[in-house]
Amino acid sequence: MQISHADAHDLAVRFLVRHEMPEPHARMVADHLVYAAKAGHTFAGLPRLLPIAERLRKSGTGGEIRTLKETDKSALIDGANVNGYVTSVLGMDKAIELARRSGVGIVGVNNSWFSGLLRFYVERAADSGLIGIHAANSTATVAPLGGADKLMGTNPLAFAFPSVNAPLVIDFATASVMWGDVIYHGQLGKPLADGCALDHGGRPTTDPAQALAGAILGWGGARGFSVAMIVQALGILAGSDPVIGDAGKWGYLFIAIDPGLLLSLDTFRERIGELTAAIERSRPVPGGETVRVPGSATQLRIDTANGRGWIELDEAIYRCIDDASR
Amino acid sequence: MQISHADAHDLAVRFLVRHEMPEPHARMVADHLVYAAKAGHTFAGLPRLLPIAERLRKSGTGGEIRTLKETDKSALIDGANVNGYVTSVLGMDKAIELARRSGVGIVGVNNSWFSGLLRFYVERAADSGLIGIHAANSTATVAPLGGADKLMGTNPLAFAFPSVNAPLVIDFATASVMWGDVIYHGQLGKPLADGCALDHGGRPTTDPAQALAGAILGWGGARGFSVAMIVQALGILAGSDPVIGDAGKWGYLFIAIDPGLLLSLDTFRERIGELTAAIERSRPVPGGETVRVPGSATQLRIDTANGRGWIELDEAIYRCIDDASR
Repeated sequence: MQISHADAHDLAVRFLVRHEMPEPHARMVADHLVYAAKAGHTFAGLPRLLPIAERLRKSGTGGEIRTLKETDKSALIDGANVNGYVTSVLGMDKAIELARRSGVGIVGVNNSWFSGLLRFYVERAADSGLIGIHAANSTATVAPLGGADKLMGTNPLAFAFPSVNAPLVIDFATASVMWGDVIYHGQLGKPLADGCALDHGGRPTTDPAQALAGAILGWGGARGFSVAMIVQALGILAGSDPVIGDAGKWGYLFIAIDPGLLLSLDTFRERIGELTAAIERSRPVPGGETVRVPGSATQLRIDTANGRGWIELDEAIYRCIDDASR
Repeated sequence: MQISHADAHDLAVRFLVRHEMPEPHARMVADHLVYAAKAGHTFAGLPRLLPIAERLRKSGTGGEIRTLKETDKSALIDGANVNGYVTSVLGMDKAIELARRSGVGIVGVNNSWFSGLLRFYVERAADSGLIGIHAANSTATVAPLGGADKLMGTNPLAFAFPSVNAPLVIDFATASVMWGDVIYHGQLGKPLADGCALDHGGRPTTDPAQALAGAILGWGGARGFSVAMIVQALGILAGSDPVIGDAGKWGYLFIAIDPGLLLSLDTFRERIGELTAAIERSRPVPGGETVRVPGSATQLRIDTANGRGWIELDEAIYRCIDDASR
């Protein structure tokens, strides 16, 4: 079914408030879920309300978010078990505020959970004329290269760079598949793709149940593992546990940098714009399609959805959410 | 043949001074080349003197390195066409000095060339109790994903994190093969591995001559391309051209961060040490070997070479270098 952005937002807020979330927080989460749906990440959209509700029932809506340590260019924030959609906006906006004042802002948030699409946060920095960087670790579900034990999170990394038009936004995870996707395949009774997971004994498996008892594989061999380690370490800087158990502390690191420290913002924007334009007008390989800048397909989906005014939502999931909102 | 570290260093200095390089610069380059040889990067060791000499003949030893812009946490440096082994030490050390004073140092160096192994520089930050980050772009030799035109450099990225023992040092390139390696294969008349290069028409090739006229492929599909774009953009922040032609400006970005901004250095060190220890003692997959932390194999080679006191050098290359040093 099609649902307007406004109706989807209202529904999400109603659902979350019904599940005890304070309304200002519910509005922030709803902003993100509608954005994720526009971006084409179906299961990071409104369907995400169901696991959020489960987590809220299990561990509550969180306490009072507190700044533990602050300088003119840094802050460490205790997320107080408030969800990551909220704490990540606060963390990124704090980094932006510090970078506006000091040229650089480095903010760590820990003791939080679920934060959706990283591009949502770094874009805020680029929209303020700053470079945004965000790394997030989480509960150990991914095995190190050559290993059988789950020790790392799915460890996404995102950068945003101001440009002449839309910012250049880069956002990717370092796991071969998302944990939620493994659960989803299990619910549908569908096998996983080859090479994504190990069973508890460290043997390759495509069975979601075996994978949930085992580990997800990382993406990209030795170099992919290198990127995953960088994200794990940056999460540690944000105050996470070294290896994050089921009740452990996650870490979100946010950095904002004013390009004016080195170049003028205009020069930086123009040069990023020249790079992306050169890529877009470059020759594709024979038989290939237009060469695309990373993140541009997502941006196009967002723009299209904004023009259209509605998002697609599975009708059964809509009913389930709507029922639970009353 | 085996050559002692001291003799290898002397030989490199003699060779470079003979090629008009000021002796203080020659000593810095020699430090790096001996380090690269210890690290097992044979062609980044003393054999690298030959292409360095060629570049010195072509474009000189460079002018006066100047700081164009400076704040308490940033600096932009004109490398004045001095080689990157020298300017990268200056750039990283400037970032370290700024981070010691202000908590963060962000330094861009441009107008420089050839800088070898990025880990050499970021290690200096970790040895000072700081997180080191370094990204370097260079002449366009690599095609974007799905494209036939060379638009990006081989774009390596490196991070170093202080830990309880040796720092965690991560260093990798985002190209499927190094440009120098393509040239080397050409000299030996050997084909490249499959999937590394395109000819000028954008068709896959294993012929080094065709690849030199065409483009290198990036590593890691869409996500590898994402990392390559991040490095390209960070190099632009350091003052590089957006797409770097043969006579264009390269960009080296150095960031040093004091973990004490968010945690205490001791806490950070301990947690990074716990992460790497957990990986090293984790179960390998059935039939696999010990699970290794990224960068640890290189560290082991360096430690072994330090204990042994000598490096291996091809005798023909030794004679060639020795002759040209007189």
